[in-house]
Amino acid sequence: MESNAFPEAERRGVYRAIVERRDVRCHFRADPIATDVLVRILQAAHHAPSVGFMQPWDFIILESLDVRRRVKTLFDQANVAASEVYSGERQDLYRTLKLEGILESPLNLCITCDRSRGGPHVLGRHTMIDTDQFSVCLAVQNLWLAARAEGVGVGWVSILDPVELAAVLKLPESVLPIAYLCLGYVSEFLPEPELQRLGWRTRLPLSQVVHRDCWGEPVEQSMVLDDSSPVSQRSTIG
Amino acid sequence: MESNAFPEAERRGVYRAIVERRDVRCHFRADPIATDVLVRILQAAHHAPSVGFMQPWDFIILESLDVRRRVKTLFDQANVAASEVYSGERQDLYRTLKLEGILESPLNLCITCDRSRGGPHVLGRHTMIDTDQFSVCLAVQNLWLAARAEGVGVGWVSILDPVELAAVLKLPESVLPIAYLCLGYVSEFLPEPELQRLGWRTRLPLSQVVHRDCWGEPVEQSMVLDDSSPVSQRSTIG
Repeated sequence: MESNAFPEAERRGVYRAIVERRDVRCHFRADPIATDVLVRILQAAHHAPSVGFMQPWDFIILESLDVRRRVKTLFDQANVAASEVYSGERQDLYRTLKLEGILESPLNLCITCDRSRGGPHVLGRHTMIDTDQFSVCLAVQNLWLAARAEGVGVGWVSILDPVELAAVLKLPESVLPIAYLCLGYVSEFLPEPELQRLGWRTRLPLSQVVHRDCWGEPVEQSMVLDDSSPVSQRSTIG
Repeated sequence: MESNAFPEAERRGVYRAIVERRDVRCHFRADPIATDVLVRILQAAHHAPSVGFMQPWDFIILESLDVRRRVKTLFDQANVAASEVYSGERQDLYRTLKLEGILESPLNLCITCDRSRGGPHVLGRHTMIDTDQFSVCLAVQNLWLAARAEGVGVGWVSILDPVELAAVLKLPESVLPIAYLCLGYVSEFLPEPELQRLGWRTRLPLSQVVHRDCWGEPVEQSMVLDDSSPVSQRSTIG
């Protein structure tokens, strides 16, 4: 056993959060998230890694129903437009999908990226300028996993025009909305992703996306990537 | 206690991984990562959420010293250029920083984004086209946290020209390198981020980056965001 590894139950917690986390759109309960829980998951997000320790994120907590109704209107507009790229059965299926919980969830949260934070020369950001936005995403995932451990469901609503969303939230010019999230306790966490359950798309075999030393070269035979995964074996939900 | 919340030890594991994760550049040991551990942390990455269940990520495992030496050369070139934007004491400090462990770590891993995966119409990606890259970052953070739980250190090297890196790794045209990571067991995980310890930049108070209902509006007084954070209290390392 590696000495810096966590004890078994703590390690199991990390893998459970990863495997049992869901993008939640449907099963929100109306009761508010306890304040101490909310503070813990925000702290979790704030402890994400960031390029040059830039910490480019801000968290806008949205309880106001008025603001959320305006965001919901943006979603409805963008979703009608999105549905029109599909046709036939695919379009029928698309239109049955519930893709947001903006008004049913007790809390919305927008996580933003301030591209000007840390001044013009952020360490590590010269060759890959978008690493500020990438850092914000790392914070999103921290929050998502901490929320799962607390029994809080999170859904990411990406079907929103970012320019219009920025106007509703009065973001300064240097600040981009990255993730618009709906949060709340849930009646259940589904055993598999909803898009998989509904036949929209299935999980790829891991072996299909792992390469060795350069693109397209297979890994060694001894490396069994699929089926035997201890991540899913360890989970109670397969 | 919320019924969907994890038991205490499992929840502690999630917060420990989040708070004790480090960007590792210095303390790599040379011994290889056990294959079962590597498979688990790849599975963890593969279980990240992705826009429209797109799963745009690929994982290129780099053991070849030849390939890694070519990447190290790219880093050296980019790092000299990066150091020249600073001057005086700041430049002196920059030049003392160890910003990568490409050759010392036993394994490098490039996580990429295939922008064409899932076809031209990925659900949820119409208004925010970069959500594919964002999804890859969520996978990176899953891997980073699972690795911490396993006692494996991870360092993200962003000081690389992405076009040159793509050429070294023979990436197809539609595939971008997002995260170039160094992985290995470590002699220690530092108690705080190295850039903070060396005085490059400090952690912002959480209260400074939380807003209510729109940008710039403070949260309620009752919401104590700093100091009292159970995330850090819970951690053994402050």
